[in-house]
Amino acid sequence: MEKISQAGAANHELNDGKDAINNVSVCGYDSLHQLLAQNLKPQIFQEVSRLLLGLNCGKPLQTISLAEPVKSLSLKHDFDLQAFCFHADKESVREPRIVRVGLIQNSIALPTTAPFSNQKKAIFEKVKPIIEAAGASGVNILCLQEAWMMPFAFCTREKGWCEFAEPVDGESTQFLQDLASRYNMVINHIPRVGDFNESTYYMEGNTGHPVFETAYGKIAINICYGRHHPLNWLAFGLNGAEIVFNPSATVGELSEPMWPIEARNAAIANIYFVGSINRVGTEIFPNPFTSGNGRPQHTDFGHFYGSSHFSAPDASCTPSLSRFRDGLLISDMDLNLCRQLKDKWGFRMTARYELYAEMLARYLKPEFEPQVISDPLLNKKAS
Amino acid sequence: MEKISQAGAANHELNDGKDAINNVSVCGYDSLHQLLAQNLKPQIFQEVSRLLLGLNCGKPLQTISLAEPVKSLSLKHDFDLQAFCFHADKESVREPRIVRVGLIQNSIALPTTAPFSNQKKAIFEKVKPIIEAAGASGVNILCLQEAWMMPFAFCTREKGWCEFAEPVDGESTQFLQDLASRYNMVINHIPRVGDFNESTYYMEGNTGHPVFETAYGKIAINICYGRHHPLNWLAFGLNGAEIVFNPSATVGELSEPMWPIEARNAAIANIYFVGSINRVGTEIFPNPFTSGNGRPQHTDFGHFYGSSHFSAPDASCTPSLSRFRDGLLISDMDLNLCRQLKDKWGFRMTARYELYAEMLARYLKPEFEPQVISDPLLNKKAS
Repeated sequence: MEKISQAGAANHELNDGKDAINNVSVCGYDSLHQLLAQNLKPQIFQEVSRLLLGLNCGKPLQTISLAEPVKSLSLKHDFDLQAFCFHADKESVREPRIVRVGLIQNSIALPTTAPFSNQKKAIFEKVKPIIEAAGASGVNILCLQEAWMMPFAFCTREKGWCEFAEPVDGESTQFLQDLASRYNMVINHIPRVGDFNESTYYMEGNTGHPVFETAYGKIAINICYGRHHPLNWLAFGLNGAEIVFNPSATVGELSEPMWPIEARNAAIANIYFVGSINRVGTEIFPNPFTSGNGRPQHTDFGHFYGSSHFSAPDASCTPSLSRFRDGLLISDMDLNLCRQLKDKWGFRMTARYELYAEMLARYLKPEFEPQVISDPLLNKKAS
Repeated sequence: MEKISQAGAANHELNDGKDAINNVSVCGYDSLHQLLAQNLKPQIFQEVSRLLLGLNCGKPLQTISLAEPVKSLSLKHDFDLQAFCFHADKESVREPRIVRVGLIQNSIALPTTAPFSNQKKAIFEKVKPIIEAAGASGVNILCLQEAWMMPFAFCTREKGWCEFAEPVDGESTQFLQDLASRYNMVINHIPRVGDFNESTYYMEGNTGHPVFETAYGKIAINICYGRHHPLNWLAFGLNGAEIVFNPSATVGELSEPMWPIEARNAAIANIYFVGSINRVGTEIFPNPFTSGNGRPQHTDFGHFYGSSHFSAPDASCTPSLSRFRDGLLISDMDLNLCRQLKDKWGFRMTARYELYAEMLARYLKPEFEPQVISDPLLNKKAS
């Protein structure tokens, strides 16, 4: 059954690849996984899923059945709801260390022209039932999207949006604290919206790569653009993180082909779980702006394509949440998997950290000479 | 049209995921890309391809049309033949820097019980027409698979296979030198088979991360297991590599879900092209051996699943070569793409190398303290 509309099909013929992406992006299908499930015979879909999502303990990822009240919440408030279970092998000495983790992606609730406090309150009202669904599902650790209480206004470079900033113990924190204590959940977000990540608004941070030791496990946050930096991911791993969240806000043209790759590689290479969150929707801003890409001024950044997902250290991963709808993704994770894989694959053991430390130290010096072996014939041709 | 045989279908029901993988692996389909092309409507396949292979300069990757004599060679000698073109944007000052790069994957030619010199010569004879096809196609830089002139015997841990080792200027080198000079090609392989990468046969190397400056561009080799280490990939990038090859030998159960991810992430994060090569076939050895995974002794390592491919720094990649057949993959690459993306995405610019160098140096010290912030309530519960 074709899920791409006729309008999308016509637009696919456009010569401008970017327009084609935009139009196809807003048509029909919720996720790659769903698109394949609906268009492939089951046996072929199963093999394709093995290649695309990997296997966990030698089997396709199991789904978790959630309680009816939770499902009802997702229908009533129209959010995508998916739940999976990452197993580890049974051990003889240790019990399984299972933690239930959730990700929430959402679009904003009011137009960006509404008064700021109304916008923020409306987002609170929008995510509240989704957080409650997470709590009712027994989620232990919940992460929201980057800058969740505001539109992603950094694209405008206008300083007025700074009014959304709050102190650490501001209203967003209080809102979440109430829900966190009700459900005994650890909830992560960007606690100081004043720590913006666009160079118009922020300076680079200097607080290192903290790992937060919670009641349920060791977690860390690698914000947005930080996912492009393997050494960022590495540092959280060296500090002992077992689950690293990447709350992001990104649009299709810049990043969609990379989105399934970077976090997944980080999970494999650093042997921890990764929760990737991206917001959804297209946000229209009141004043047009340009983006340094030659295009004329425009009032939106593009389509935030959601697609939040979890990646496991054994190279398996969940399907993605919807590319359009709000969503809650829940995964059980047996954290024993991290140590089992460290033992099995030996990546941490075989890494030549002393060589890399030495090389990076050399690289930073102005007199750094790259280790290049030149073809002697090249010099002869020049002379 | 279903490509998975009935035998494969029946085996899919097995409870042992590993047996199911093995049996499905040897059935029917050549590659994920081909499986999807044959089973999805064109419009849906196009969108799926966009998500899985990315876009190059906003468009799906272009194929290259090769000359008839080359195609005839591929039919006559039964190897998969594919060719693609990675474009970059036009620049106003620099001309395009286009290099044509090839990868060869192949199975061994004779049983592993044959005399070693016969085995090696038979492999020479097998790959020769494929190298000639590359030369006739105007390939500038060609890379063969890991330990290409021998069966991948390291799984046996038997020292007799060391007889395959050669000095740097041994017969394999001479064989390739002849072809390289005939076609004015740079050809890469493991020049000293004595540099084995299995701990029974090798010690860890200490020659750093050399980049070879050839007539066609700066290249490097990241061998096999090295692909699991992001810092390895990084080091080649810091030394200025523009194309990094990963000649590997790997089997489905261990690595197939990871295979499309690691090299692709390395290309994106380090802003260079990556050529990933894996051998094909199942190699049966004369003496059974165990693998430390609880399974009884066996005489083969598993199925080497080929799937060689190129990854570009813009997150696009080629479809893979066959999972079963010998193959030659050719790609044109405009190396200007590397600098364009460094400018556009700013990964190199924004990397906090000084912080990472400092952190790695600290990590190596016995007194290293991970940066962990503990929930104060945890301590209270314990007391």
